[in-house]
Amino acid sequence: MSARTLGQVRVVGTGLLGTSIGLGLSALDVDVVLHDVSPSTLALAVDYGAGRRARPDDEPALLVVAVPPDRTAEVVAAELAASPSSLVTDVASVKAGVLDALRAGGAPLERYVGSHPMAGRERSGPIAARADLFLGRPWVIAPHVASATEQVAALEALARDLGAVPTTLAADRHDAAVAVVSHAPQLVSSLLAARLVDAPEHATDLAGQGLRDTTRIAASDPALWLQILSANAARVAPVLAALRDDLDAVLGALQDPAAPGAQRALADALAAGNSGVARIPGKHGVDLRTTTLTVLIDDRPGQLARLLTEIGEMAVNLEDMRLEHSPGAPIGIVEVSVLPEAAAGLETDLVRRGWRVA
Amino acid sequence: MSARTLGQVRVVGTGLLGTSIGLGLSALDVDVVLHDVSPSTLALAVDYGAGRRARPDDEPALLVVAVPPDRTAEVVAAELAASPSSLVTDVASVKAGVLDALRAGGAPLERYVGSHPMAGRERSGPIAARADLFLGRPWVIAPHVASATEQVAALEALARDLGAVPTTLAADRHDAAVAVVSHAPQLVSSLLAARLVDAPEHATDLAGQGLRDTTRIAASDPALWLQILSANAARVAPVLAALRDDLDAVLGALQDPAAPGAQRALADALAAGNSGVARIPGKHGVDLRTTTLTVLIDDRPGQLARLLTEIGEMAVNLEDMRLEHSPGAPIGIVEVSVLPEAAAGLETDLVRRGWRVA
Repeated sequence: MSARTLGQVRVVGTGLLGTSIGLGLSALDVDVVLHDVSPSTLALAVDYGAGRRARPDDEPALLVVAVPPDRTAEVVAAELAASPSSLVTDVASVKAGVLDALRAGGAPLERYVGSHPMAGRERSGPIAARADLFLGRPWVIAPHVASATEQVAALEALARDLGAVPTTLAADRHDAAVAVVSHAPQLVSSLLAARLVDAPEHATDLAGQGLRDTTRIAASDPALWLQILSANAARVAPVLAALRDDLDAVLGALQDPAAPGAQRALADALAAGNSGVARIPGKHGVDLRTTTLTVLIDDRPGQLARLLTEIGEMAVNLEDMRLEHSPGAPIGIVEVSVLPEAAAGLETDLVRRGWRVA
Repeated sequence: MSARTLGQVRVVGTGLLGTSIGLGLSALDVDVVLHDVSPSTLALAVDYGAGRRARPDDEPALLVVAVPPDRTAEVVAAELAASPSSLVTDVASVKAGVLDALRAGGAPLERYVGSHPMAGRERSGPIAARADLFLGRPWVIAPHVASATEQVAALEALARDLGAVPTTLAADRHDAAVAVVSHAPQLVSSLLAARLVDAPEHATDLAGQGLRDTTRIAASDPALWLQILSANAARVAPVLAALRDDLDAVLGALQDPAAPGAQRALADALAAGNSGVARIPGKHGVDLRTTTLTVLIDDRPGQLARLLTEIGEMAVNLEDMRLEHSPGAPIGIVEVSVLPEAAAGLETDLVRRGWRVA
């Protein structure tokens, strides 16, 4: 199944996510119908190429509600009522509340399946939209007891067509997961950035990449996040309470670094951070699911291609790789990540072929 | 003044910073003499092109001590004694403690001026070094009452030659500044990443860019950071104590989001985060030296090698590249960074050869 075969798709709410979905589907020649309560936001999304305005004879097969979290349940209910045979989904960041509200309101749940693309930016609105916003990102589909297999398959096709990686997760498990991987990090980033408000200018002038990275999402839209955090407060609170306990231990150690146990408390906090970041799959940090070899190559065109060609000849699939290349250095450093069971053989083969493995 | 006119430079400690300084100066044809207590670390830095081994007749004009923070004062004192007419600097992240220890030990302070390049990585050692590590970064020079103008000028020349932006700041003001822009962010990132240790795998699989950015530096070397935090504990503690007070307010609001004032507390925290991040000068994460193209490849062995072979055939040299590969995704995302003047032609050529450039 593919979005191309879904038929007409109606996107309600042409902010960052709605417009990005419209852009991605329009690029696949899907007939995308756009709607937004704000005429100027709608006009911008249409101008931007995300789809066309609604017509009275439209008959969307799929409706995607991409409005602010605190309006999502209401708009989903209205769209279910307006299109009595269509599948409706939403893209709100918190899922259990929407489902509960629809159930409480007597909505026809058998035509609603919630979803949540794990993509966003610290900027909002149609202007910030991009067709590739979802590329490689997880897209959670949250079926409930009344959901049919073909409905989940239709949403998986939507996610895949937009380049995302669909995954199914019940609403409450989704909400607990995003509390720890998204909502707590947002608040912590905001709290950290707030420490800069009264910092002297000679201090902020010393900002490096670490500060920029840790505080980037603190620039996010407060109105949106107030809604998200309120909707998921019960699941975010325990994450932050545990963080506060750890912070108290670190703070005690800093206030008396010579006290017995103080160095241990700091070392434990830093080591736990190492362990935590290692659990994030993908490009940053150390991925425990793969083993990384460091290969030194001469900084000449073609060397990297030769290395990868030879790795290909060994029939080893790369899970991840990074090239580091310093303009002043005569060699480049290539980090190749492979499945653990392939690492030892790969290292032996590379060394035998004359590569320098560090 | 320029490093080229400084004469011989001796770098003691060939870890990330020392080796990067050596690479940068060697590229400018400065005679760089390297020393490290670890023969294997020294050999790697020499192999890497960061400089040469010391000889008995060396007469360095400038000595740069780039050893771990807790050994800095001791090594600076030894280098001052060994080269009785040379200027000695160090690159440790905390400055007041080094100066105090040297003063207490009766070192000839009139030949020592501390400094601190605001550059680093979450990885360490000569392998992680890069000649452009300091490019565009602040480099603090911390003169004291016995420092001469020409000594400050010599260190400013060193910083500028390595592409950094020199700035002068007394040791205590420097230490208070880095507590808020570097040391507190490190601990907060570690505390946040620690929340992932016990998270279920379906949660960490949902990690997005926000989590990756906020926790990137949590992968840093715990041994190094334990030293830095201990040396600057008195200045980091008040920053984290203020953050803890803000966290308590947010936590109270999350635990009872319907209580009077709860929404206001959350909104204030998010708005303060906006204000704080707005105080960071410059662009976020944009590398002005290169242009990055995003190429989508099928997730099959050999595809990446084929792409790089074809880029090599176009005689374009890669400045940097990254592969992103989401578990389960049918495509990989390759980000190739090239010099800006090569980007447009490369994109045209890749599209003509059938590659999907996003």
